[in-house]
Amino acid sequence: MIRDITGFSNPLVKRLRSLREKKHRKREGLFLAEGLRILTEARDSGALPEILVLSDDARPHPLAEELIEQTLAAGGDVIRTSAEILSKITAKDNAQALVGVYPDRPTPLAAIDRSAAPLWFVAQAMRDPGNLGTLMRIGDAVGAGGVILVDDCVDPFSVETVRASMGAIFTQAIVPTEWNEFLGWLRTGEGQLVGTSLNTTHDYQGPRYAAPTFLMIGNEARGLPEDYEQACDLLVKIPMLGRADSLNASVAAAVMAYEVVNQRKTATT
Amino acid sequence: MIRDITGFSNPLVKRLRSLREKKHRKREGLFLAEGLRILTEARDSGALPEILVLSDDARPHPLAEELIEQTLAAGGDVIRTSAEILSKITAKDNAQALVGVYPDRPTPLAAIDRSAAPLWFVAQAMRDPGNLGTLMRIGDAVGAGGVILVDDCVDPFSVETVRASMGAIFTQAIVPTEWNEFLGWLRTGEGQLVGTSLNTTHDYQGPRYAAPTFLMIGNEARGLPEDYEQACDLLVKIPMLGRADSLNASVAAAVMAYEVVNQRKTATT
Repeated sequence: MIRDITGFSNPLVKRLRSLREKKHRKREGLFLAEGLRILTEARDSGALPEILVLSDDARPHPLAEELIEQTLAAGGDVIRTSAEILSKITAKDNAQALVGVYPDRPTPLAAIDRSAAPLWFVAQAMRDPGNLGTLMRIGDAVGAGGVILVDDCVDPFSVETVRASMGAIFTQAIVPTEWNEFLGWLRTGEGQLVGTSLNTTHDYQGPRYAAPTFLMIGNEARGLPEDYEQACDLLVKIPMLGRADSLNASVAAAVMAYEVVNQRKTATT
Repeated sequence: MIRDITGFSNPLVKRLRSLREKKHRKREGLFLAEGLRILTEARDSGALPEILVLSDDARPHPLAEELIEQTLAAGGDVIRTSAEILSKITAKDNAQALVGVYPDRPTPLAAIDRSAAPLWFVAQAMRDPGNLGTLMRIGDAVGAGGVILVDDCVDPFSVETVRASMGAIFTQAIVPTEWNEFLGWLRTGEGQLVGTSLNTTHDYQGPRYAAPTFLMIGNEARGLPEDYEQACDLLVKIPMLGRADSLNASVAAAVMAYEVVNQRKTATT
């Protein structure tokens, strides 16, 4: 059954709004995702929302109808409310007409099957939600397994990150851990740890990358700490032909990741 | 001489704040850039600010001292004010300790020397300032000549765009024009127009790109209009191995641009 909510002061509205904050997400183990495209992506990846909120002034869309039915069939709640209240929930003007509440699903490091994918990202102290979400989206595009988060990264389940991921939050494993824990785990099996660095002259197209490749992406402002660089099996550099000395973190990740997958493509043809 | 300003209601503070808005930038032909790094980049590219604003609680930095001297020597104004007022000007908490006011410098299409660079970006209806700034930054990294803007693009001189460009706004030609004008100009000389598209099966690593390459980047949500695709000499596709059907616009631009410059690298060695 679809339930209607009309008041801003409704406790559920307050609860949903609170999910914009990390502490409330943590406590509830839930996060918000917006928009028909991302919610359909989630469904196709096997995730249905615990709560589906829709705007009462939205034109009915066949895909939205499907989502409503499937959410109800799976025991979830479906709430209809005003576009204004939806905007309040996601703190965005012109909010999407659909918002879903999903259980967060961090993957423990020990649960990763590293050989299930040829490539994994390791984000180190990544601070920008747009970068982290874009990294997930790139991971999906290149067939990566997921993003391992070390040090003080931005919350992977924030509204902004989920938005930038364009649904990849549901297809990529999200693995929050610590650097030492990650390094210990890495060395118990196969895996080449690759960092991009200004402190090397090795062009990124030089080496043949070994699967699974673990690509480290350093903090946006500072890059990788020196001892992290030393722990890498390979340090490489993306050529910079102009005045700037670096690329945006997610852009550099994409250039590296496509080099890795392109090498595999060449190897198999 | 350095002038001190302490009040929020000072007319110059108001004028500087107004430069956050496009109509005021247009009218004055000026734009704002923030931060020692970007301002130094500007100076190294030959651009000194007409007005340099610095925070009175900033520790003196030798590079900032240089900038102050050079700005004064060039007949510019140097203003010292509080960190609070600086934050007001750029509408950013923890504002950078330095803000510069520069003449905007759009390049007319007719003034471009297309053979001066192997690669040019053509942004079509790009709406996100972060994407456009990142595109400039990528352009700098790959030695592109600049960004040609067609249709309804976001203002290249907005505070957010300039911030994301990390200084590349001063090294890349910024060429606002119209699609038909661009196309007419393009066909009067050398140049291969390349678009990325979902409507093709040609892998982007297939073709040998001809210099100068004009890389089209379509609108973030809709991609390139069909008739624009038809006007391209080549349509190519970046392989997508996951569920998503597209990459972020600036990420796709980077992957394409590095393919183009990597081909040149291979060709010359």
